[in-house]
Amino acid sequence: MGNRNRDVDSPATNGGDGKYSYSKNSQYQKLATNVLSEKLDAAIMEKFDIASLSSPSRAIQLADLGCASGPNTFIAMQNIVEILQRKFKSQCPNSRSLPEFHVFFNDKISNDFNTLFVTLPSNKPYFAAGVPGSFHSRLFPNASLQFVYSSIALHWLSKVPEKVTDRNSAAWNKGRVHYTSAPGEVVEAYAEQFAKDMGEFLRTRAEEVVSGGMVVIIMPGIPHGMPHRRVPSGLMYDLMASSLMDMVNEGLLNEDEVDSFNLPLYAPSPEEMTMLVTENGDFTIEAMELTNPSPNTKGPINVRGWMVHVRAAMEGMLAKHFDKDRIDELFDRLVRKLSDECSQELESCYTEGIQLFLVLKRR
Amino acid sequence: MGNRNRDVDSPATNGGDGKYSYSKNSQYQKLATNVLSEKLDAAIMEKFDIASLSSPSRAIQLADLGCASGPNTFIAMQNIVEILQRKFKSQCPNSRSLPEFHVFFNDKISNDFNTLFVTLPSNKPYFAAGVPGSFHSRLFPNASLQFVYSSIALHWLSKVPEKVTDRNSAAWNKGRVHYTSAPGEVVEAYAEQFAKDMGEFLRTRAEEVVSGGMVVIIMPGIPHGMPHRRVPSGLMYDLMASSLMDMVNEGLLNEDEVDSFNLPLYAPSPEEMTMLVTENGDFTIEAMELTNPSPNTKGPINVRGWMVHVRAAMEGMLAKHFDKDRIDELFDRLVRKLSDECSQELESCYTEGIQLFLVLKRR
Repeated sequence: MGNRNRDVDSPATNGGDGKYSYSKNSQYQKLATNVLSEKLDAAIMEKFDIASLSSPSRAIQLADLGCASGPNTFIAMQNIVEILQRKFKSQCPNSRSLPEFHVFFNDKISNDFNTLFVTLPSNKPYFAAGVPGSFHSRLFPNASLQFVYSSIALHWLSKVPEKVTDRNSAAWNKGRVHYTSAPGEVVEAYAEQFAKDMGEFLRTRAEEVVSGGMVVIIMPGIPHGMPHRRVPSGLMYDLMASSLMDMVNEGLLNEDEVDSFNLPLYAPSPEEMTMLVTENGDFTIEAMELTNPSPNTKGPINVRGWMVHVRAAMEGMLAKHFDKDRIDELFDRLVRKLSDECSQELESCYTEGIQLFLVLKRR
Repeated sequence: MGNRNRDVDSPATNGGDGKYSYSKNSQYQKLATNVLSEKLDAAIMEKFDIASLSSPSRAIQLADLGCASGPNTFIAMQNIVEILQRKFKSQCPNSRSLPEFHVFFNDKISNDFNTLFVTLPSNKPYFAAGVPGSFHSRLFPNASLQFVYSSIALHWLSKVPEKVTDRNSAAWNKGRVHYTSAPGEVVEAYAEQFAKDMGEFLRTRAEEVVSGGMVVIIMPGIPHGMPHRRVPSGLMYDLMASSLMDMVNEGLLNEDEVDSFNLPLYAPSPEEMTMLVTENGDFTIEAMELTNPSPNTKGPINVRGWMVHVRAAMEGMLAKHFDKDRIDELFDRLVRKLSDECSQELESCYTEGIQLFLVLKRR
């Protein structure tokens, strides 16, 4: 097959079930999902009109966009299907049977679907399918989905904004790996790319989701105007850059390698998101808030555990740019910086409202 | 995930794209598909009422059951979608747009879906999804498919019939690996298993396929009453058994290992198939014939090439039973037997009508 898909080489989370695999290292993402279960329940019970969206001749179709290789996606989809069943029973108490559910697990083509499929629960209340491809493009037929869910996935940009790796641009992001602590031009280049990606996401979903259908998005967010270094991930991106620059100064890396490396990650504010949804025009905002992804976790952050998670999510991307031993070195240094030099700054980081919960409804 | 699927450990065709991979070694299966393209075209053009099966609000849904890891499935599905588009244009010349198509690629959970997805053509005329699971069970919601295709897959039984590995049964298949040249009890045990599997296949498809929907099956077949050793695959199974027994006699294998190994493969006659479809009762037979899978191939069979194909399809199953070096040895011996000792018998084998082409329509 000469005709390979273009996004084959994009990074996905780590496959398999090894030490650094996503499937073994996604408990934080799971935690983030758990605390939102109640909000999700409320959104569906109050705002999803399953009686008019279901028909005896057709299953309710759901998609998890950016599902990774499990197992969080199974917990989330099981939970959503159970809420939908409860809503159906409350709306249609006289109906003799429940609707059928068809769940589509989507992620990039390079995602480890084999691991996803092997670990799929056998006694699940739905039919399952996997859908490879970018959620910044069309994935499903017109008006074929009743419910879309995307958790901790939309912060991945479709690409690094071109300007930030262009030496001749005012947005050249020299010596950094992210827009955290960067000049306004860099922040703007990232914001533009996110606006474009989110625009494509909303445009394509508007075609795929039936009128009255629901789109639930959970992703990293930040209060409007807050400097990114004030949140743990922002601080970590800054320390990743300074670790890499230390390695440059010690002759372990070439400066160009660091200058040309940028993380395609973005966390919007609710104000930004509102603007993008309004611009698209096909969805109403049914709920939006900044939440605490781990409200029940007290005490200092477990830096080592956190870094294993970050590595599981980012390794594919790092490995395209740096040698494996340099990645080991980078994470060793990062752990040291976060737990020693900058432990106080990390502890005083803002952690309350750094996760965006958004419920949209297709007009 | 403690909750692993039961059929995870069943054999699938060889994944990846290595020397013995299915994706690199399935040209025979492709050939088998090519010669049937005209018959498929005729069946769709004459018997598939796409005008009444499509609706502006809903894509036509197709499934390839037993698709393996590509690339034949892409060629087949592209071909079918193009015929369907042509049929639609001829039936609805005034329609402004073509229907959308949603293609579901199904195979066992252990199939290499990663390779399948990476090689999926990017400019295909349909939306694609992968569906892991056995086609002897439910895979899709009720009445959700308009077209089902299954090529060179239904000859795989869901399991080896229990009796044939039971020392105390009259159907104990001692010293053989298949029902070819076996006593009537063994043949019967295999036929029973096939009837059961095909019954499940038809029962579950009847639930999934809409009224008027089409099911096209291509699989190994055999004329009623013909001894299985008269066809190339039958001869090969016999020689596989005698190669293994030679290895037992030379002390390379334990006799028990051979006695307990049986290939879960079955080729029905049209008469048998008619009986099973009639028993099910939900489908009409629109076309059925025994065809020549390679009518344009002249001269002696390329034994070495054929064995590489057989190995790509069977290795998963063999590897669960025998060490890798024994499998190498087995295929070396098999090639020798087929090209030397038994080359005349192989050349005089019946090759005309050893592939069953069957078109069913859901009542």
